[in-house]
Amino acid sequence: MSANHRSVLNETRLRVRYAETDQMGVVYHSNHFIWFEVGRVELMRQMGFSYRDLERDEGRFIAVAEAKCQYRSPVFYDEEVVIRTWLKSVRDSVIVFNYELLRADADTLLAEGETLHLVTDSNMKLAKLPEKYLKVFRSAVHRKKPEKEIERSAH
Amino acid sequence: MSANHRSVLNETRLRVRYAETDQMGVVYHSNHFIWFEVGRVELMRQMGFSYRDLERDEGRFIAVAEAKCQYRSPVFYDEEVVIRTWLKSVRDSVIVFNYELLRADADTLLAEGETLHLVTDSNMKLAKLPEKYLKVFRSAVHRKKPEKEIERSAH
Amino acid sequence: MSANHRSVLNETRLRVRYAETDQMGVVYHSNHFIWFEVGRVELMRQMGFSYRDLERDEGRFIAVAEAKCQYRSPVFYDEEVVIRTWLKSVRDSVIVFNYELLRADADTLLAEGETLHLVTDSNMKLAKLPEKYLKVFRSAVHRKKPEKEIERSAH
Amino acid sequence: MSANHRSVLNETRLRVRYAETDQMGVVYHSNHFIWFEVGRVELMRQMGFSYRDLERDEGRFIAVAEAKCQYRSPVFYDEEVVIRTWLKSVRDSVIVFNYELLRADADTLLAEGETLHLVTDSNMKLAKLPEKYLKVFRSAVHRKKPEKEIERSAH
Repeated sequence: MSANHRSVLNETRLRVRYAETDQMGVVYHSNHFIWFEVGRVELMRQMGFSYRDLERDEGRFIAVAEAKCQYRSPVFYDEEVVIRTWLKSVRDSVIVFNYELLRADADTLLAEGETLHLVTDSNMKLAKLPEKYLKVFRSAVHRKKPEKEIERSAH
Repeated sequence: MSANHRSVLNETRLRVRYAETDQMGVVYHSNHFIWFEVGRVELMRQMGFSYRDLERDEGRFIAVAEAKCQYRSPVFYDEEVVIRTWLKSVRDSVIVFNYELLRADADTLLAEGETLHLVTDSNMKLAKLPEKYLKVFRSAVHRKKPEKEIERSAH
Repeated sequence: MSANHRSVLNETRLRVRYAETDQMGVVYHSNHFIWFEVGRVELMRQMGFSYRDLERDEGRFIAVAEAKCQYRSPVFYDEEVVIRTWLKSVRDSVIVFNYELLRADADTLLAEGETLHLVTDSNMKLAKLPEKYLKVFRSAVHRKKPEKEIERSAH
Repeated sequence: MSANHRSVLNETRLRVRYAETDQMGVVYHSNHFIWFEVGRVELMRQMGFSYRDLERDEGRFIAVAEAKCQYRSPVFYDEEVVIRTWLKSVRDSVIVFNYELLRADADTLLAEGETLHLVTDSNMKLAKLPEKYLKVFRSAVHRKKPEKEIERSAH
């Protein structure tokens, strides 16, 4: 596992599914949180490890303790959406991720979000992240929203 | 656990959630399978046991092996839907459920469905249902669609 | 449409579906927002109108602009959950709802949430809520979390 | 719009989301139908048009009338899944799609499915597909499961 300056921000692209729309003709608002999770997992993969293995091999879970989203613009069916994810802060058992959703073809801001997580063991008890993971997480923290230049080089 | 003639059919009522609609203005078709599962679990409760306990205490899972649905009429937001569930057949490790979805206030048929399940252990290996459960399941089988009279007495 | 002191808080009960769990063995965190919406719609019904009719007959939509949730305790499959919903504030085009999720059989706090909504027309443009609705909403605002006594009388 | 022999089968790849798992530790069975829809839309895109435009510009909807799935193997979190979609038959207002889900890294068959659709107008009344679409659909029909050679060339 390794991380460097170029891996602090992840950009993952997905296409809006019909199932994700509602009768208002736009994406139903709970789906944004599912997309944040997609971004989170891909950021970890970019940082050099798989969340699946963290659960399976280390018995550590990154459970959601707080989640919020500000919806800036409606998201439509079949659009391509870019999820930008970065780490805002990391302590022994507390991790905060930040997110932006953008319309892929126009860079329109669709939503901004933040999730705060607690590291737990398989019994939902608070636990420390193994040191090798903590190190990677710490080196990837990006307190402010990463600059546009950096973001683009993240690909 | 006990079952009798009056418990062969379950009728469970739910109200359509906004999240379940899509931009066609009707319920997205995968949700019908989630509702079938709601009906299945309530039928088991009516038969005298909880599916949760079957998983937790007996380590047995009723996994879906086949599922089908015929959509007869669109389902709209905020409607009340009745899920009718009954057992079509039971063998040692194979259970078949049948379903009808009805508009609560008009008895309009919304959909018909069938799911075939395999009983497994926690490693997804085929397993037998414990005898006490099998007995209850067998006594509740109703090969043909239960008659209207019987259905109504099921409440 | 009418509202009185006894209708300021809604308590709606639902049972956790299998589809709502994830492989952590608890309810996946985006579902809480779907449940909040269930509570919101039932609060409106208790206040004397249907959100469906507001959309259909008045062409007004109550779109989510911000949503947040604090997860206090894991929610398990097949549990009964009580959603408590009340209005925190109402202005011409901005409505804020507050929520609590409780374990039905033990009053354990499962989650707390808040959603901020903008009233729009069918083109997603900001619009005023019709006066007759505004009046009902205003009379139902409950800036602080309603007292337990009031809550219980809300049934 | 154009179609040729090489476009009869679509292969689309997606990664399993955490939200799609349930407490059995595998993908919940209703999600397969959402994935089928993803495949269907991508097959149409490969055939030269967008389903979104068909809805928006032509006022035609491809509504699901029947859906079935046979689950062959459990699908796990974070796996990459290949959705293979092809047209089984097309008549004026009736379209049948077939699907296979495969584990991307091993070609394991995960599920097989079929959906039957009715073409409707925006009032859910049966309607004909515009002739230019019908022509493309007809030329893409592949009654039998496409051969492996053809499938691979479909990329």
